[in-house]
Amino acid sequence: MKFPEWMANVQRRVEQALEQRLPAAQLAPQRLHQAMRYAALGGGKRVRPLLAFAAGEMTGAPADRLDVIACALESIHVYSLVHDDMPCMDDDTLRRGKPTVHVQYDQATALLVGDALQTLAFEQLSLPGLFDDSHKQVRAIAMLAKASGSRGMAGGQAIDLDSVGKSITREELEFMHIHKTGALIRAAVMLGALAGNHESASDSATLERLDHFGKCIGLLFQVIDDILDEVADTATLGKTAGKDAAQDKPTYVSIIGLTPARTLARELAEEAHDTLAPLGANAQRLKEITDYIVSRPF
Amino acid sequence: MKFPEWMANVQRRVEQALEQRLPAAQLAPQRLHQAMRYAALGGGKRVRPLLAFAAGEMTGAPADRLDVIACALESIHVYSLVHDDMPCMDDDTLRRGKPTVHVQYDQATALLVGDALQTLAFEQLSLPGLFDDSHKQVRAIAMLAKASGSRGMAGGQAIDLDSVGKSITREELEFMHIHKTGALIRAAVMLGALAGNHESASDSATLERLDHFGKCIGLLFQVIDDILDEVADTATLGKTAGKDAAQDKPTYVSIIGLTPARTLARELAEEAHDTLAPLGANAQRLKEITDYIVSRPF
Repeated sequence: MKFPEWMANVQRRVEQALEQRLPAAQLAPQRLHQAMRYAALGGGKRVRPLLAFAAGEMTGAPADRLDVIACALESIHVYSLVHDDMPCMDDDTLRRGKPTVHVQYDQATALLVGDALQTLAFEQLSLPGLFDDSHKQVRAIAMLAKASGSRGMAGGQAIDLDSVGKSITREELEFMHIHKTGALIRAAVMLGALAGNHESASDSATLERLDHFGKCIGLLFQVIDDILDEVADTATLGKTAGKDAAQDKPTYVSIIGLTPARTLARELAEEAHDTLAPLGANAQRLKEITDYIVSRPF
Repeated sequence: MKFPEWMANVQRRVEQALEQRLPAAQLAPQRLHQAMRYAALGGGKRVRPLLAFAAGEMTGAPADRLDVIACALESIHVYSLVHDDMPCMDDDTLRRGKPTVHVQYDQATALLVGDALQTLAFEQLSLPGLFDDSHKQVRAIAMLAKASGSRGMAGGQAIDLDSVGKSITREELEFMHIHKTGALIRAAVMLGALAGNHESASDSATLERLDHFGKCIGLLFQVIDDILDEVADTATLGKTAGKDAAQDKPTYVSIIGLTPARTLARELAEEAHDTLAPLGANAQRLKEITDYIVSRPF
């Protein structure tokens, strides 16, 4: 199967899985459930699920287990978007081409939508029998929690807030991004791999290699995001363009400049490919996702 | 050991466990970690931990396992308080006798504190080796998630928001409270019991009985809370008194009246005792907690 077709398949599966696994809109409390569905359905590139599926296919993970993992990852990701968009944070009105949750509903609902989506992620990962091996399931839950919390995604968000209007170093910027975006992307690769039934799913050399790949791709993703925020328009992005500069937020573009940022992106893509090389044809989808991430004109 | 001494012991243990298990204040991002500690340490009656310890002692749960469960329960409870106090929700300035997190820090920090505390709860419950039996550990995580999410605590909060200024029935009020406060209190009892190593920790008749007790005590707790909001003063409560009436929120007092609410509280306490009776002396602490909850002059 060609990559675009594979990608479209996974995106369709994930949409369907979310559709089924999010609480139904008619279930009480209806307004909350409607807003959760509004936030999570019908949009997004589903990068984290794509990475989980690609890594999971490498290690022989059952597709229905990957569906649940993908839902958990997207629930965490979407919760963070909903909260980040709130007036006390980035105060944004547009996300995935639609009004943000607090605009479409209200702030209190947006707060609860984020809260409940986070919980839903852990509810999904703790479904009975999701893994044949409960020990591995606990490990997967721990991995998601670590990646999302104050030493991962939420912590990166806090550093981001603190850095507004400040001049920070390239190292500090990298530290922020490794947490804010990198941690969950890395967890997506690792959770997908861990879900496998093959030997490779427990092989520490393979897992270490995938972890390093996850780290590269997480940073790559953010560098490209910083570049696109500078060069693309709002219609293309589906979210407000030029936001970082307007909010005086440090980015790779503001700190190292546009051309060096482009060079860095190419270097990170190369490092990602080099890391995957020893894994051979098994890692094909991960290589293709890397190429896909750098394929947006930046 | 007399109950007041037992209670003080558990409260001390839980404070110590939180102190150790919350990220250190010097750890980056410092401001977030300081604010998480500000929110969670040094206050509160620790009702959920008390219930978990009491149920856990019944089923022979190791105290260090109960410490972790207590931290997870308090993390969820405190996250909900921090978010509930925010301006877009109840807009409160006082909690446990101190300025609320968004007043002491700022709204963005309060949002992230709540988010990160929720994650911390799941990080704690997924610690490797917390349970001898990983299968039970997954069940415990699922239980906490279910009690906290859109069909539990967060859902109850959403119903609460929707009910402001509306006239609702007693049944609707009960439905709201069963979710908003009841679900997590019930989970506290069940998680404590599940943590045990005795036969009784897996005995479905005992667990069902404890679950019913948890339901009674959760509702009882809320009825008393509604009465105290009406009759006690701010200094006694450590939070703003008379808030429900000021915000035109339905309560047991506003819907059934003060005297019937007091009668209901006594009936629920009696039902809780009746439920525990067949468990004999093993359930002594749970009985004492029931009496403690109704002991505040209401």
